[in-house]
Amino acid sequence: MSKIAKWLKKEQENSILTQVKNLKTENPLDTWELFEEIGDGNFGTVYKARLVAQPSVVCATKKIPLCEDEEEDIYTTELLVLSECKHQNVIKLLDCYLHVDNIFLMLEFCALGAMDSILKELDRGLDEEAIKIVTKQTLEGLRYLHKNGIIHRDIKAGNLLLTDQAIVKIADFGVSARNKNHSKKRVSHVGTPYWMAPEVIVCETVKDNPYDYKADIWSLGITILELAEMNPPGHDLHPARVLLKIPKSPPPTFLYPGKWTEQFTDFLSRCLTKDTKRRYSADQLLKHKWIASCRDNKALRMVIGEVSAPVEEKLEEQGQG
Amino acid sequence: MSKIAKWLKKEQENSILTQVKNLKTENPLDTWELFEEIGDGNFGTVYKARLVAQPSVVCATKKIPLCEDEEEDIYTTELLVLSECKHQNVIKLLDCYLHVDNIFLMLEFCALGAMDSILKELDRGLDEEAIKIVTKQTLEGLRYLHKNGIIHRDIKAGNLLLTDQAIVKIADFGVSARNKNHSKKRVSHVGTPYWMAPEVIVCETVKDNPYDYKADIWSLGITILELAEMNPPGHDLHPARVLLKIPKSPPPTFLYPGKWTEQFTDFLSRCLTKDTKRRYSADQLLKHKWIASCRDNKALRMVIGEVSAPVEEKLEEQGQG
Repeated sequence: MSKIAKWLKKEQENSILTQVKNLKTENPLDTWELFEEIGDGNFGTVYKARLVAQPSVVCATKKIPLCEDEEEDIYTTELLVLSECKHQNVIKLLDCYLHVDNIFLMLEFCALGAMDSILKELDRGLDEEAIKIVTKQTLEGLRYLHKNGIIHRDIKAGNLLLTDQAIVKIADFGVSARNKNHSKKRVSHVGTPYWMAPEVIVCETVKDNPYDYKADIWSLGITILELAEMNPPGHDLHPARVLLKIPKSPPPTFLYPGKWTEQFTDFLSRCLTKDTKRRYSADQLLKHKWIASCRDNKALRMVIGEVSAPVEEKLEEQGQG
Repeated sequence: MSKIAKWLKKEQENSILTQVKNLKTENPLDTWELFEEIGDGNFGTVYKARLVAQPSVVCATKKIPLCEDEEEDIYTTELLVLSECKHQNVIKLLDCYLHVDNIFLMLEFCALGAMDSILKELDRGLDEEAIKIVTKQTLEGLRYLHKNGIIHRDIKAGNLLLTDQAIVKIADFGVSARNKNHSKKRVSHVGTPYWMAPEVIVCETVKDNPYDYKADIWSLGITILELAEMNPPGHDLHPARVLLKIPKSPPPTFLYPGKWTEQFTDFLSRCLTKDTKRRYSADQLLKHKWIASCRDNKALRMVIGEVSAPVEEKLEEQGQG
């Protein structure tokens, strides 16, 4: 193959459509029946769906209207990342359709929904053992993603889904970044720094730094505080104020330090370290004593028992009808 | 046209090849004769070339070998930006070929070469009037680029070319960025900031800021110091040291302040303002008294008279041969 042919081929491969494996163009409603709206995301509606041929098989269907606005790269990113990922703690893409004016993502169904809605239903934060289980599973998902050069960039309780088997799945990859060799690439762009504006240097330094995946670890730390206290620190402040405050302030800590073990407090501080170099990686955190002491899912199963699973009930109702 | 058709079309349009207007695939050497190597850039060799049919028409030919390394987006960026730009102070792309294993960019020929080599040849900095002319023309180019959503990102004397007609042309768009609606797009990606790592906030704040084109203005300020003093500030330090120093230090100023007028010193300080909001735009700088007092190109023509134009001489020699 000539170099031109290779180059042209590479160009084609850059087309998002051809990068998504098994993108189907038939009508998904021939195969799946959407029977209940379960959410309204940023980029479309989420339905619960079941296989027409085998109604016991359910999925969550994200229906995204194709439009020509600029948000397009958000769902195409999600499509690409999901079509590449296979890990127990990362939401699985079962099927994917491009039909008429919509993209349909058929995603693993997580009966309990997102962790933030579980907190709302409980009307309290989780206990330390339950947080530990959620944290451990999230870290295993993150370790997988980071090893594969994917930064999630939006880790929070609202993006951690829970199955009725007490499995936590990282979802919502709309703002994720693939950063394989990203930093290497960047460096070569920068050239000599003498002419560079100070604000560019600050930003390039952040982008060039091989620790950019550590942003997910910080977000995990904030998510831990959210799981413990129902809200992230600063939730009572205006977002713009928070943007100014976080870089200037020391890392947040527990509101009631006495409530939590020393190991847990230490673990949290490894996530919420401002120096990205010193901030632990997913790998390091999984070896931390607090996580290593996690033996089973019992505490999380108890949480599941406590919250009702309304979708499940509805299914039964429908079965009766 | 259905939405899918539109989407597919958009995908195709994203292919760089189709975005470059008039990309030719025939052999450029049928039309142009490369007769002299005049430089060796980061991404290929630069030749002086002349039209076979009309040898008095010359151009600078950038021959870029196609390879599968990661630098590819650098020359494709240049190709795209140049194929869109039409301004007296921006280097013009006359023709562009994709042939066998190479891309050939046929660029406007600037007989005097880059401003940094002129400084070397003079073995001194320019006087204030000559700097004023270079600055004014560069600003006119920058105003055009910024209005069209293009940030050059590598403004320095080495990327300002000079014609024998004393016209300054901005060249080398390899690291440029198109940022039309870029910031608007970004903001929607960020979402609520509570979970964001401090280093991400710092960087996003830079990227989101509608003043990112002001980076070119800072670089212009440094270029002014370079034109005046032959080198950018900090040139004697290691690049890594400079990266650390610039964001922390006050803006650089002239080494010999007494040598320059008050208006010039004030103008420079408007370029080298750390707060991007307060840093002047190209438009504002063109209205500054120091620039507004620029009437003709005489001082720059005198510089041209002073430096020899070796390429011109060679041409004559060849004409004689």
